Amino acid sequence: MLSIEPVTPGPLPRSAILNTEPTERSDAARNRELLLDAAEALVREQGADAVTMDAVAKRAGVGKGTVFRRFGSRSGLMHALLDQSEKKLQAAYMFGPPPLGPGAPPVERLVAFGRARLNGIEVEGDVIREASGGADRYSGAPYNVTKTHVSLLLRQAEAEGNIWLLADTLMAAIDAGLVLHQTRVLGYTLEQIGDYWESLVRRVTARTAQ
Amino acid sequence: MLSIEPVTPGPLPRSAILNTEPTERSDAARNRELLLDAAEALVREQGADAVTMDAVAKRAGVGKGTVFRRFGSRSGLMHALLDQSEKKLQAAYMFGPPPLGPGAPPVERLVAFGRARLNGIEVEGDVIREASGGADRYSGAPYNVTKTHVSLLLRQAEAEGNIWLLADTLMAAIDAGLVLHQTRVLGYTLEQIGDYWESLVRRVTARTAQ
Repeated sequence: MLSIEPVTPGPLPRSAILNTEPTERSDAARNRELLLDAAEALVREQGADAVTMDAVAKRAGVGKGTVFRRFGSRSGLMHALLDQSEKKLQAAYMFGPPPLGPGAPPVERLVAFGRARLNGIEVEGDVIREASGGADRYSGAPYNVTKTHVSLLLRQAEAEGNIWLLADTLMAAIDAGLVLHQTRVLGYTLEQIGDYWESLVRRVTARTAQ
Repeated sequence: MLSIEPVTPGPLPRSAILNTEPTERSDAARNRELLLDAAEALVREQGADAVTMDAVAKRAGVGKGTVFRRFGSRSGLMHALLDQSEKKLQAAYMFGPPPLGPGAPPVERLVAFGRARLNGIEVEGDVIREASGGADRYSGAPYNVTKTHVSLLLRQAEAEGNIWLLADTLMAAIDAGLVLHQTRVLGYTLEQIGDYWESLVRRVTARTAQ
């Protein structure tokens, strides 16, 4: 379901990417990735509630102690999971192939960004709910790295009016909590919401007539 | 600062308005209003933190016991305060004078609605934060009464695309948590955000060229 293309490793400016911890030895990094992939699969198949330290250990074929050593607690695991999803999406829109990555016209990149974000929401939405969010959500790095990207594309598209406030609105339109309500309570499909997103982006970036 | 016009009392369809309790005797209702006005003044002048049962009692010139009997707890008071603000805004856009109330063109009513909401946010925002909000915010009556209003105006304005998803986006653009971040952290004025809101409404309701 996730439409984000795999990204070839390269010299990422790491400061631009969310970091939870300093460099890891590569076997530890691989181990970590294995556990996070297992956790992500569980969320995708059964929802965030299914992610217990036990279930992740079983799924990854390791002992429960390994999961605890690696993430400390379920909350730590949830944060790491969210962090990984953000990193993947960031890498895809910063360095991946067009239309999500550089090379496509800005409006097409915005459209692709929204659709990629929506496709991740089944996973991330539940995790965001679990991993606090809270009052400082708009001040945190995940929000603002993404907002910078959206603002940049809006500027390139020569959108009118206040670019930064418009970026807030666009991000609010595909906020995880709202989208989960739209899909789970109101019955919209992610595709319908993606189509709506596309029409919204085209309208707010259209040049005013006259 | 609140730009909502006072509404002349009349035969309101009460089912459309949020109700917290059945009919009250009019002296009790006046008493309640007095206390809520005192609480609202405190929020407006000193923020939601300043609203204690004690402070409200002092401000209203009654004993603390009266406030407790009336609202049960600080949380009860906060909910009642939010409820009152919602009712005032609802009455204003449903039955008040144009451009917020009936009689103005739908786009002008949408513009006026956003500005009225923004003007209430200094009060309501803090109260919303205190009075839960939470996961079911999109399912609750306050959200959906307002969403119905916004959707109706969008339909009257013959806005293109999915009216209900667009209503969610517009409401997200002036969500209390987001707007408080924009004013308190980013330093925007409510007037700047109101001007942005107006330009957003005009763009999303503009007929597509060709």
